[in-house]
Amino acid sequence: MLVNHGMNQLTSLSIARSYSFAPSTAAVLRRQSFLIRALGGGSHSKFHSTAGSTMQETEADAVSILRGITPTLDPNRHKGQAGKIAVIGGCREYTGAPYFAAISALKIGADLSHVFCTKDAAPVIKSYSPELIVHPVLEESYSVREEERKQVSAKVVAEVDKWMERFDCLVVGPGLGRDPFLLDCVSEIIKQGRHSNVPIVVDGDGLFLVTNSLDLVHGYPLAVLTPNVNEYKRLVQKVLKCEVDDADAPGQLASLAKQIGGVTILRKGRSDLISDGDIVNSVSIYGSPRRCGGQGDILSGSVAVFLSWARQPFVAADRNPTVLGCIAGSALLRKAASLAFETRKRSTLTTDIIECLGRSLEDICPAC
Amino acid sequence: MLVNHGMNQLTSLSIARSYSFAPSTAAVLRRQSFLIRALGGGSHSKFHSTAGSTMQETEADAVSILRGITPTLDPNRHKGQAGKIAVIGGCREYTGAPYFAAISALKIGADLSHVFCTKDAAPVIKSYSPELIVHPVLEESYSVREEERKQVSAKVVAEVDKWMERFDCLVVGPGLGRDPFLLDCVSEIIKQGRHSNVPIVVDGDGLFLVTNSLDLVHGYPLAVLTPNVNEYKRLVQKVLKCEVDDADAPGQLASLAKQIGGVTILRKGRSDLISDGDIVNSVSIYGSPRRCGGQGDILSGSVAVFLSWARQPFVAADRNPTVLGCIAGSALLRKAASLAFETRKRSTLTTDIIECLGRSLEDICPAC
Repeated sequence: MLVNHGMNQLTSLSIARSYSFAPSTAAVLRRQSFLIRALGGGSHSKFHSTAGSTMQETEADAVSILRGITPTLDPNRHKGQAGKIAVIGGCREYTGAPYFAAISALKIGADLSHVFCTKDAAPVIKSYSPELIVHPVLEESYSVREEERKQVSAKVVAEVDKWMERFDCLVVGPGLGRDPFLLDCVSEIIKQGRHSNVPIVVDGDGLFLVTNSLDLVHGYPLAVLTPNVNEYKRLVQKVLKCEVDDADAPGQLASLAKQIGGVTILRKGRSDLISDGDIVNSVSIYGSPRRCGGQGDILSGSVAVFLSWARQPFVAADRNPTVLGCIAGSALLRKAASLAFETRKRSTLTTDIIECLGRSLEDICPAC
Repeated sequence: MLVNHGMNQLTSLSIARSYSFAPSTAAVLRRQSFLIRALGGGSHSKFHSTAGSTMQETEADAVSILRGITPTLDPNRHKGQAGKIAVIGGCREYTGAPYFAAISALKIGADLSHVFCTKDAAPVIKSYSPELIVHPVLEESYSVREEERKQVSAKVVAEVDKWMERFDCLVVGPGLGRDPFLLDCVSEIIKQGRHSNVPIVVDGDGLFLVTNSLDLVHGYPLAVLTPNVNEYKRLVQKVLKCEVDDADAPGQLASLAKQIGGVTILRKGRSDLISDGDIVNSVSIYGSPRRCGGQGDILSGSVAVFLSWARQPFVAADRNPTVLGCIAGSALLRKAASLAFETRKRSTLTTDIIECLGRSLEDICPAC
């Protein structure tokens, strides 16, 4: 698990060290005040403005939030303390998505990035990069006989669970596929993660799973859903029993998040909208018109890292870390996509955007 | 096995050639004197200063040591004479770590780099680079029936042993995993290596193995252990029956090395501490605050190469080659990490650091 990193780059190292044990009240209050401003709220309210019954989103000061939650690089720290992320995904059909999510987490600054995937997918994902730790533990129906299922399922879940307490965040869904047996196992993994109080970012086929089994995330404040336009539509239909209403996009998003018990939802779009049921923030800065597949995987990996960082004691305790993580992740992806598009134009691919993550973070939040 | 390489770049080629046969006494004495200075010791003592009962570490002149042990590139030499390294590691879960160790050895200047791994891991490790020679010979429990174990174990050990006398150093542990049957086989490989007087660098899961079976390395002066913070903690608890005492870090490290019969230990940290039980040296130069996983694998591969070079006749015979190898390996990794961090910042990955090994070595010790 993450331990304190000390303060962000705006604060001197000597102060930072004290944060490993007991952050000073004054410093926490300063940061709270800063983050309230950055979230667009007044000093006396954590809610954004509303007009009548229709909720308005507020553009988050995403750059300030990103700077506020990103820890300093402290030479006294050791491996793992800047974050350990696990992606649950990757099957016979899909191998790129979990790679994109996991490598993005590393490129942003996590120390270790694991992937739990099927046995077919593992050698391929491993071959994309030696930087990832890839566990070939998931199974699809075709490789498990009916009478073995219970036993195999228990083994799969135990394989992931023995690592669980080491992780700062799970990303469930990139390249997961929709095999029923595999999804049953992943349901159990989500329950284990929740039981261990590990934050869970749900994307892609993970959203297919939780849309059909809302109890998996309902009422879990450390759950983040990152739906694209179609995934959002299915969620709205399932939970709110209506169609997507773009005329009241913020209000509907807040209702949706509230109905699922206060999970945080990042609705991807031209502007990304983020809500935990209370506040609705938008992130519209930067961005690229290129819509190549895989950008959502960068986002889920990025949100996982920033969410973990936003849970550090140096971040104001009354700010929802899942919301802060979504805002920072959204801003960083959009910045990297815009940088990649500057040079690659129509040929921009997800790999090009990943290559721009480091420079984007450095532009916004210099390492030293 | 390595044969004489001639002198380092500070010495003319004509003199160097004579070293292949009989180094002159004067040249050996000059180098001895230089290395004693580089290790921070006085000319009359090989021990560093102590204050009361608490041992103090001495910052090694790592740059001079690195220059002192790196052989010249002599066009008369042939393939293999600059070093042949073997990494024992790589299993179903871990493939990146053995690749990092093996490719680092090549990037520093070894001529041949082998990996002995499981059958699952081999195709993946091969796919990372065509430069490595990858032997799919290790077996994990799941692929061996109970009644076959003895026979399979003998075959695995024989497969590695037939190569043993060609190797200048083994690196045992990167990505080895903790499968009991596999670790039993690796225990036998360590015994064979020791029997053949091949130096052995133990890292990662290899440390898990030797911490539980200290006899494997006890009293072997060519063994090097390279623990990180957690691995060091387990070693101290097991051997010294106490907790890590950072107030007396050098003294405790020296005691630990002595208790394991004079093996050399490189304790990784903000400053690396190195001891064979007699002296305690630190390496604090360069470095990066990034703690991405995999840097320890670069170190183990680097130490293997430098250790092999430090055993050449042109290096003073009364300097412990394992200590010299650790100091040089530590310095080179730290230099490469600092160079990578200069451009990559938070997004620095192990692959980026490996790409900086060559430039780092060239900066410290130009090839010509």
